[in-house]
Amino acid sequence: MEQKKLVVIGGGTGSFVLLSGLKAFPVELTAIVPVTDDGGSTGRLRDEFGFLPVGDMRQCLAALAPENGFLRKLLLYRFEKGEGLTGHNLGNLLLTALEDLAGSEPKAVIEAAKLFRLKGKVWPISNTLVKLGAQYSDGKTIVSEHKIETHRLVPNERITRLFTIPETTINPEAKAALLEAEAIIFAPGDLFNSVIASLVIKGAKEAIEVSRAKLIYVVNLMTLNSQTNYMSAADHVKEIEKYADRKMDKIVINNQAVPDKIKQVYAKEVEYPVVDDLAADPRVVRREMLAKAPYEKSKSDVIKRSLLRHDPEKLAQTIIKLLAD
Amino acid sequence: MEQKKLVVIGGGTGSFVLLSGLKAFPVELTAIVPVTDDGGSTGRLRDEFGFLPVGDMRQCLAALAPENGFLRKLLLYRFEKGEGLTGHNLGNLLLTALEDLAGSEPKAVIEAAKLFRLKGKVWPISNTLVKLGAQYSDGKTIVSEHKIETHRLVPNERITRLFTIPETTINPEAKAALLEAEAIIFAPGDLFNSVIASLVIKGAKEAIEVSRAKLIYVVNLMTLNSQTNYMSAADHVKEIEKYADRKMDKIVINNQAVPDKIKQVYAKEVEYPVVDDLAADPRVVRREMLAKAPYEKSKSDVIKRSLLRHDPEKLAQTIIKLLAD
Repeated sequence: MEQKKLVVIGGGTGSFVLLSGLKAFPVELTAIVPVTDDGGSTGRLRDEFGFLPVGDMRQCLAALAPENGFLRKLLLYRFEKGEGLTGHNLGNLLLTALEDLAGSEPKAVIEAAKLFRLKGKVWPISNTLVKLGAQYSDGKTIVSEHKIETHRLVPNERITRLFTIPETTINPEAKAALLEAEAIIFAPGDLFNSVIASLVIKGAKEAIEVSRAKLIYVVNLMTLNSQTNYMSAADHVKEIEKYADRKMDKIVINNQAVPDKIKQVYAKEVEYPVVDDLAADPRVVRREMLAKAPYEKSKSDVIKRSLLRHDPEKLAQTIIKLLAD
Repeated sequence: MEQKKLVVIGGGTGSFVLLSGLKAFPVELTAIVPVTDDGGSTGRLRDEFGFLPVGDMRQCLAALAPENGFLRKLLLYRFEKGEGLTGHNLGNLLLTALEDLAGSEPKAVIEAAKLFRLKGKVWPISNTLVKLGAQYSDGKTIVSEHKIETHRLVPNERITRLFTIPETTINPEAKAALLEAEAIIFAPGDLFNSVIASLVIKGAKEAIEVSRAKLIYVVNLMTLNSQTNYMSAADHVKEIEKYADRKMDKIVINNQAVPDKIKQVYAKEVEYPVVDDLAADPRVVRREMLAKAPYEKSKSDVIKRSLLRHDPEKLAQTIIKLLAD
């Protein structure tokens, strides 16, 4: 039986969790990652080498590494010591070296997939290094993914337009994957920086429009102060649909209560559980999907990463069931 | 048919060339590398992480990588850019991360061998990080492999004693490999820093003494200003036999003339082709074994590396033929 082709659009921890769960199922996985990351280890490498950013790619490759192997740990390994090394991920350095040797990021990915026997492919949405820009409801513009991530929204402030500088077009491998997919899943995570950052690349929404893929959106667990402050589930869906230019077919929402202790940590950052205001929407699937062990922050991890995550298995099971419908 | 067990003692380019050639044959390969390297990328990592040095290990792992793969290039990749990265080898960083994750260098090697499907094993001669010391004919002592390597011998100056600080004992895996070997091959390369550096570890020469292995010594092509200035082939053999405490069974010598152009480069460093004064010695095997393409130096390669090398195939063929005798 031919395996179903699934495409995951996103980056960071969200794609990592989703791919980690999905790879246990007999499906053909392709992850599509943005090319706009310019913070942390990735940002340093991007500035110094001029290659496409490697952070999201590394997360996805690690998620697709064979189970019980050392590879996943190795790709995610972060140097806590060493002059100039501290904060760098081994996986980022490995991808940088591969990219230099292979001549391009797509070729680097192909080599990495062979070398490490990965259970899927990872394509950058574009082969051009671009900067992410956001226009806000007050008219201000911020250019740089990292700066967008560290900006704190004031009440009622919203990102009204996302774009890249310069404009660039979709990578043919990513386009083909979108066209062939039976389902395109928008991963949880940074709504603008990780998910919509791929949708604003020329040719992305056009491919999604033509594709017969079922569109599935996994709503975030928590709001994100830099991007989705005070946004409800319906607000999230509205944004995704605006940039994808197509209605979602299914919307996956966690309905397990977030523990108070974790809520308190997030509240300090003015971040709260995303309010589910989609009661009447027939497309919504609700499941208890919180991961048990909270994610531990690395000491040298200068970028804020999510504490609360979806449980990879539960999330993947929910999605696989949707595909059978 | 059971494969013959060969052990290669050495490090750097010498072991790399020898292992690269030998892995094409149906033999079981084990490389033994010293734990005293403290220069370059390895030295920085050693100082910053306190792990066993990774440079020689990386060279051997790269040599044992499956042919036509990207892995070898990847392990040898040297960063030419990047703050704090320049001069580091990806392979060194990868081994450092593996060592940190695995908890020890031997475990890191086992994981690397599995991960990369390597055609052989690589063991550090000891599990303890030690410094190399050399006493010279004028009574002076230098402690640090890197300093020994950068010291320039004056005429008639010799290394009269090699030792480690502190003294340390052989790693059980290395010991077992020596005991089981059908042949122990002393690789070309830095006579003291790469080869004898392993022999001065407690238990090494004792294992070689008990082992039934045939001992094969590959004489260097050129003298090395820091270690073997003005030494003839017989002088080289004498040193190896002094520290191995056993007579060599076979001595492999290149008899192809070194091109004048290359000689001139070496002469500037007061280095010359090793004079073959072993005419009457029945143990000597002479073959034309020079590699065609001279080794290219990387721009950020702060440590001097050999320009002239043995041809891996020709050297390996010579050795494999000796085993059949």
